[in-house]
Amino acid sequence: MKHMVSMLDFTPRELAGLIERAAQSKAGDSAALRRALSGRVLVAVFFNPSLRTRVSFELAMKRFGGDAVVLSVGRDAWKIETRDGVVMDGEASEHVREAAAVLSRYGDLLAVRSFARLHSEDEDARDEVVRSFARHASVPVVNMESAMEHPCQGLADWLTMCEQLGQTLERRFVLRWAPHVKPLPRAVPHSAVLAAAAAGMHVTIACPPGYELHPAILDRAATWCAAAGARLDVVHDPQPACREADVVYVKSWGAPRFYGEPDAQRADFERYRDWMLTRDDLGSQTKLMHCLPVRRNVVIADDALDDPRCVVADQAENRMWVQAAVLARLSEE
Amino acid sequence: MKHMVSMLDFTPRELAGLIERAAQSKAGDSAALRRALSGRVLVAVFFNPSLRTRVSFELAMKRFGGDAVVLSVGRDAWKIETRDGVVMDGEASEHVREAAAVLSRYGDLLAVRSFARLHSEDEDARDEVVRSFARHASVPVVNMESAMEHPCQGLADWLTMCEQLGQTLERRFVLRWAPHVKPLPRAVPHSAVLAAAAAGMHVTIACPPGYELHPAILDRAATWCAAAGARLDVVHDPQPACREADVVYVKSWGAPRFYGEPDAQRADFERYRDWMLTRDDLGSQTKLMHCLPVRRNVVIADDALDDPRCVVADQAENRMWVQAAVLARLSEE
Amino acid sequence: MKHMVSMLDFTPRELAGLIERAAQSKAGDSAALRRALSGRVLVAVFFNPSLRTRVSFELAMKRFGGDAVVLSVGRDAWKIETRDGVVMDGEASEHVREAAAVLSRYGDLLAVRSFARLHSEDEDARDEVVRSFARHASVPVVNMESAMEHPCQGLADWLTMCEQLGQTLERRFVLRWAPHVKPLPRAVPHSAVLAAAAAGMHVTIACPPGYELHPAILDRAATWCAAAGARLDVVHDPQPACREADVVYVKSWGAPRFYGEPDAQRADFERYRDWMLTRDDLGSQTKLMHCLPVRRNVVIADDALDDPRCVVADQAENRMWVQAAVLARLSEE
Repeated sequence: MKHMVSMLDFTPRELAGLIERAAQSKAGDSAALRRALSGRVLVAVFFNPSLRTRVSFELAMKRFGGDAVVLSVGRDAWKIETRDGVVMDGEASEHVREAAAVLSRYGDLLAVRSFARLHSEDEDARDEVVRSFARHASVPVVNMESAMEHPCQGLADWLTMCEQLGQTLERRFVLRWAPHVKPLPRAVPHSAVLAAAAAGMHVTIACPPGYELHPAILDRAATWCAAAGARLDVVHDPQPACREADVVYVKSWGAPRFYGEPDAQRADFERYRDWMLTRDDLGSQTKLMHCLPVRRNVVIADDALDDPRCVVADQAENRMWVQAAVLARLSEE
Repeated sequence: MKHMVSMLDFTPRELAGLIERAAQSKAGDSAALRRALSGRVLVAVFFNPSLRTRVSFELAMKRFGGDAVVLSVGRDAWKIETRDGVVMDGEASEHVREAAAVLSRYGDLLAVRSFARLHSEDEDARDEVVRSFARHASVPVVNMESAMEHPCQGLADWLTMCEQLGQTLERRFVLRWAPHVKPLPRAVPHSAVLAAAAAGMHVTIACPPGYELHPAILDRAATWCAAAGARLDVVHDPQPACREADVVYVKSWGAPRFYGEPDAQRADFERYRDWMLTRDDLGSQTKLMHCLPVRRNVVIADDALDDPRCVVADQAENRMWVQAAVLARLSEE
Repeated sequence: MKHMVSMLDFTPRELAGLIERAAQSKAGDSAALRRALSGRVLVAVFFNPSLRTRVSFELAMKRFGGDAVVLSVGRDAWKIETRDGVVMDGEASEHVREAAAVLSRYGDLLAVRSFARLHSEDEDARDEVVRSFARHASVPVVNMESAMEHPCQGLADWLTMCEQLGQTLERRFVLRWAPHVKPLPRAVPHSAVLAAAAAGMHVTIACPPGYELHPAILDRAATWCAAAGARLDVVHDPQPACREADVVYVKSWGAPRFYGEPDAQRADFERYRDWMLTRDDLGSQTKLMHCLPVRRNVVIADDALDDPRCVVADQAENRMWVQAAVLARLSEE
């Protein structure tokens, strides 16, 4: 039995296979998805709110003859314990051992969303919630955004780049950091970089000093780039790379050194207000990407978001197609 | 592509066509609904809670081979920005331009509920949330109650009157205001009056001074009444019209002059406690209507609600039938 | 028309028929369930949160061709009035008379969850919310856990015991109280004891003084045990009965004398910390049961929950099978 918890558990070739399958279905040939998903039920567990993710996962099942049941555990006070051996006399009334075992009896597939807490880089790197669900489930588990990764977003981004560029090999991908009003997790930039690297693109990460991605992600991305004959660079200047890029992927995230210090983080965002992307930052052929939701005129200016080079709605739509491909593949194992 | 945002965008004849179609389906001939809705998915976005609306919209799809995905964005802190050009450094993390575009990629139809805020009559009259969704969506949008109108409630009321009266032309419709414990929006009375006017009924609106409906609604209703040879009157006396009426539609709403002044509004409600409807206010053939939920013995007395002349459950059931007809019609455009 | 509000409204033979039907479906013969539930819609109304109950009820419909709509009224401020004749000028904006009548127009079946408030033993014993829904609904109503009973949990427990023991007649069932961090209702132990009694088992209830179950439940359970030639005993010692038992069902609940006095209840829990069940309390053939969620190392120790004699995941899975059997049976009336 296979899970989709981390893109690091797959080879670039395996991931490319999922992209091909999603593209094929989107082109009209969805018989294989229908065979794999018909009559199957996904139980989707949300510890955090969601718009795109919830709708796109529900539809990834319902559009192909399956169904989904959604649990918004994050909305109630209800908490789940993931540590082993603990005396559960605190807030959590259920342990993941029981929750995962029971939901595996109800659903054919499980999906879990649990954001980074941004308290400790080490805690977030362990990705305990989604990993403990995978450990104790008896059906495949899909990551709907964990502390470290958002693999289905990365795959949707990859499919979008294939559609926009024809092919991705040795094309130029820039991940550009942006300021915000509050610190956000690094799961999306991690998965975007892994996807671009697995797709064989030249990757440039442009961010201010101190906003680097997690070393384990950077190392793997560099390995995948190298295997495809491509480069991975980290630069601390927003401007030079973007106008020559095939894709500029804009995203804000917080710096680990400010975890637990919101005022210091906000002050640092103020220093970098000019990293907001505007239309002038894009080359004539550059595609603009963002995972959404996006704060207009803070992260990206109106003129860029309303420009035809902006493909954010395609990225969002492609969530459904790649997720159906992932769920189908895991169902067949 | 057509939306159902306001009844004012339709002619009485077009609206009557929807009523006929709903009646036909309810009578057993739902093949046309099934053809239009089978395999289609409605994405229903709630900025406010709901009981009847949510269930009846879900079933309007599910009963005829379609499906629905419900988003309760109102329950989380998540807010959506509808103004153009704004710097989004406040509470809203997503703009309606992205939300509407993306949900249009997922669903075949969208539906939106966003109540009046009762801060400013002008702001409410702009109906910005549902109108901005319609402006930026690429699929049909249905109003599930906005600041100004609740068109599907109005259509359900119309179907109920057809069932109860045989035909509606020149029958007597009284909208009677009632007191409450807090100010409510005017969307439901607006749509009820528009429906009665479109159905060619004589319309009497009975309310205390200062509780008149919005002039734009009154004007259109008067035009539609006149076109059918019927009258529209506004009176400030609860009693005379009701016992001779074919239908008394009871509803409470707040007075715009008290927006933002809950204490003054409550004091004014106290002055009009005797506007609560009782069984003695009904003629022997008068049907009693209300959109629900209703506060018993504040808005309507027990003896009237428990009387066989009360048809509120029919109104609620008819929500499903008219909504299916609306969704089917919009799907066919 | 029949409801499943209380097991007391059924004979042991009728309940056994539901267990047989559930077992038959689980063994692969679900054609009868499919005939009864296909195209039917359950409206499930939750006044309290839920994990297992919500998912298992949704799937009890969806797995057999039906569908479900879920209302989480407990999450909003929205309250429902159940008293007759009251002036509704408080928090409740809707009366159960309208809510039950309207939801009966939308769904083919209703289900209601409303926990004990633990304010007054008499109030809880009236089970007003679920009973008033049943009184005013025009379709069958299923109890998804009320103040007094959780009949579908009891039936799932019964099915689990049949699977584990082969047959239940004159086998030994021990319900063992456990301490907790806060007082819980007695609905689950009530239904577990009724199920064991209806299954003809010898029942021993082990609890500290003052933690007895409700007399009306105990009386009926004793009657059912006697009719099957079995005994029902209440003891105030946790140890002796367990190692010889075929089943030990562990559950915590609060003592009525502490209702409204959380500090006194917590202090009393402290006195009985050694009632937590450990592996050593089980005989070599004893099955360990609990309804979940369970607080590990407070109610039951890790070593017992992780032991192969623990069948809690089977109990949870069986919720779906017995609920489908109940919903099918009520649909056929």
